[in-house]
Amino acid sequence: MGFDLQQLKNSRGLDLAVWPPRYDPKYCPSSSEEYWFPEIECASDEERDELIFWKLRNQLAYAWEHSPFYRHLWQQFGVSPETLKSLADLAQFPVIQKSDLRKDQEKNPPFGDLLSIQPSEIRRIHGTSGTTGRPILFGVGADDWERFSNAHARIMWSAGLRPEDQMMVCSFFSLYVGSWGALIGGERLGATLFPFGAGAPGQTARAVEWAQYAKPTAFYGTPSYALHLAETAQRLGIDPRSLGFRLLFFSGEPGAGIPATKRLIEGTFAGACIDMGSMAEMTPWMTNSECRHRTGMHLWQDLVYTELCDPITYKPVPFGSEGTPVYTHLERRSQPMIRLASNDQSRWVDSPCPCGRTYPRLPAGIYGRYDDMLLVRGKNIYPSAVENALREIEGFGGEFRIIISSQEHMDELLIRAEYENGEHSSGLNDTARSSIEEKLRDRLGLRPVVELVPPGSLARSEFKARRAIDNRDLYRKSLGKEP
Amino acid sequence: MGFDLQQLKNSRGLDLAVWPPRYDPKYCPSSSEEYWFPEIECASDEERDELIFWKLRNQLAYAWEHSPFYRHLWQQFGVSPETLKSLADLAQFPVIQKSDLRKDQEKNPPFGDLLSIQPSEIRRIHGTSGTTGRPILFGVGADDWERFSNAHARIMWSAGLRPEDQMMVCSFFSLYVGSWGALIGGERLGATLFPFGAGAPGQTARAVEWAQYAKPTAFYGTPSYALHLAETAQRLGIDPRSLGFRLLFFSGEPGAGIPATKRLIEGTFAGACIDMGSMAEMTPWMTNSECRHRTGMHLWQDLVYTELCDPITYKPVPFGSEGTPVYTHLERRSQPMIRLASNDQSRWVDSPCPCGRTYPRLPAGIYGRYDDMLLVRGKNIYPSAVENALREIEGFGGEFRIIISSQEHMDELLIRAEYENGEHSSGLNDTARSSIEEKLRDRLGLRPVVELVPPGSLARSEFKARRAIDNRDLYRKSLGKEP
Repeated sequence: MGFDLQQLKNSRGLDLAVWPPRYDPKYCPSSSEEYWFPEIECASDEERDELIFWKLRNQLAYAWEHSPFYRHLWQQFGVSPETLKSLADLAQFPVIQKSDLRKDQEKNPPFGDLLSIQPSEIRRIHGTSGTTGRPILFGVGADDWERFSNAHARIMWSAGLRPEDQMMVCSFFSLYVGSWGALIGGERLGATLFPFGAGAPGQTARAVEWAQYAKPTAFYGTPSYALHLAETAQRLGIDPRSLGFRLLFFSGEPGAGIPATKRLIEGTFAGACIDMGSMAEMTPWMTNSECRHRTGMHLWQDLVYTELCDPITYKPVPFGSEGTPVYTHLERRSQPMIRLASNDQSRWVDSPCPCGRTYPRLPAGIYGRYDDMLLVRGKNIYPSAVENALREIEGFGGEFRIIISSQEHMDELLIRAEYENGEHSSGLNDTARSSIEEKLRDRLGLRPVVELVPPGSLARSEFKARRAIDNRDLYRKSLGKEP
Repeated sequence: MGFDLQQLKNSRGLDLAVWPPRYDPKYCPSSSEEYWFPEIECASDEERDELIFWKLRNQLAYAWEHSPFYRHLWQQFGVSPETLKSLADLAQFPVIQKSDLRKDQEKNPPFGDLLSIQPSEIRRIHGTSGTTGRPILFGVGADDWERFSNAHARIMWSAGLRPEDQMMVCSFFSLYVGSWGALIGGERLGATLFPFGAGAPGQTARAVEWAQYAKPTAFYGTPSYALHLAETAQRLGIDPRSLGFRLLFFSGEPGAGIPATKRLIEGTFAGACIDMGSMAEMTPWMTNSECRHRTGMHLWQDLVYTELCDPITYKPVPFGSEGTPVYTHLERRSQPMIRLASNDQSRWVDSPCPCGRTYPRLPAGIYGRYDDMLLVRGKNIYPSAVENALREIEGFGGEFRIIISSQEHMDELLIRAEYENGEHSSGLNDTARSSIEEKLRDRLGLRPVVELVPPGSLARSEFKARRAIDNRDLYRKSLGKEP
């Protein structure tokens, strides 16, 4: 490799003589340093690609050996670790979709054939919210968890988080790994962590009070929660800028990468708004993240290798083009994702960033979807899941619309559904509507507002129905926008 | 000391040559072993008291040197670390109350003069829910956090938790340290952790599904949440026994120590119900805990030294008597509590437990309060806080009652309040009541049901008003009961 491995080991505690690499848990740059691993973050493409190729070759060989899921899939497609002669050869491997993971886990519960460590090695369990049926379970080994904390420390360092900071984590601590990544990444770099959480009713006013008591300098959460917190503060007569967040990290929702929203957040809090996030399935490694210059998310390619691809062929597109990120782990043992299709919409560039890092970037973040999945308050909502849930309800008339809007910066999900002609329809009073809302909440993970309309009042489509209407500013403003 | 220190260090990784002690993070007994540190847990009183005395002397000297809070307080009472010639001399030191901590933090925000490390050494921030006004902030150093994980691992080991177990933590991850203790204690002993959390609406049905997917063998949460989970499972047609929890750990609420409730939980889940918990202010060390024989909570005296005291004089009472636990940390650097009065009601004994541990026990757990604090769904509710909140509401008529009951095993808080005579009362319609509920929720941390009654309909007391009525089975069943 082009890197001076002995020097990386001696001065940075990074051992690249073994795969997965070993990280010294005590290594930390001094606060005035810009980079965690400058040699890698500012490397030339050629030099870093050599490192990535070495990691990727090891990751593929590992998956081939330990995961029947990949071995069977790759055999079907006539590829094997031997296929990889250069980094570009990765595009010959098949992409996998979330639905493949779900099917694998249904067939081989609970963790699927994808699991590449012994079940006894699993130390943490997380997962997706599973709104389309069975959720996807993540079983994470202790060594992956540790590498994850090192990755997050390094990434948050690039945005300016330092040991002197106190970070208040205002996202729900549960299945969602993002909150945990912020926690252990922040801990790894030596910051003070204040895991406040979110999700309990009435907690936002408390969050404002606690921010005043504890005086955190950094925030982690979703853009909608931050704006809700700001409005709650204002209602209590408190200027959100007085809370003192100099850094605000966001994931779990689009928005922080969209110029108008970023301006709104930065104006509201007088702090830097940092967009982060790839996919729940890629975490513990959330390796798309902005640096302190906020020029779009860097793709930290030596941690997770990302190809921006054509959304139909999944072949990489040139820099400057639009496509969908396809993600590949490079140092994960427990449940590696190799060419996981996100079906998110983005654009990538390789123009320089003032920070000096040489990673490619998504200058406008992630701004849309190539399928019909909707991201509402951090949850994946599929129109098909709404449909399935409605069809289980007696009195449902068969047609519906999903309307998403912003109410005081919190996403609102309205479901407009027809009731059935005949005897049942008279039963669809307020109580029935409330019970439908409950049922949908149980399935979707968030409570929609349900509006019942007479049979036949919603237009039917002859082709693929587009039942979702997204009225959020976040999406409207992102249409056709350049950063 | 009577212990073979070299042997403890060599075979158990416990270094008692320094205070605070050092724990080897890799030490773990083999799964078939009953004890984590058998030499200490099964020691004679004399031998262990010698260890406790050594720890206590160091803890007092440390507090005297690093905490102006204790130095000033002790000077007022004419005591100093020199006063401690024997363990019994601790009773000469003044007790401190929660309200003292609150006043200290109000005067010296945010952590008070009690903070005994540099603010820059704080790595985690937690706190109380602060329903009576300003909450109490905990600033925990990295070394305390690590000792805490060692303490919890050791205590949960005594209840039978092993590296082979998978523990689902179903309590809210936020300010409350109990959930974090379960998490890091379980991790420290090598178990698989599934931090599911709680608190978000609609999450209980999800918890049932996830228990079915991931097949955890242990549960951590509150008794009311466990019973609510069981009823949710039953509604979904699932026998809670099929979830496979062989161990259920409880804290944050009384109940798991009350024979009727313990029988109910054990019958419902076919698993062992383990009662744990002291006070939020004592955590990270929650050192009252049952062993797998469930004969009442052991007081792990070499981690936190507990005196059962007369509730007025705070002098220790003999074994067999009733009193209030007074807690003293023995290895905490960041915010040590020395003689913190719980004002909880309990009884202690020193009769042998079949487990062989020689710690004193609270055979009926904690079964009441000597003041008027109510514990509802894991939150401390003071009638005075309810009163303060009501008095801020226009149209409130001056008298009220607090009625606590169980609805499907979840605590329900009903506040019956008089409205004011005159023009405002007509405004107290459903919308107004709902807004009062919101205001109370913001203050109390949980939403009560509010019932408005005409002026003068509630009897007034001439003396100290007893406005709280606790109708929960948990309390009714505990009255006058012996284990």
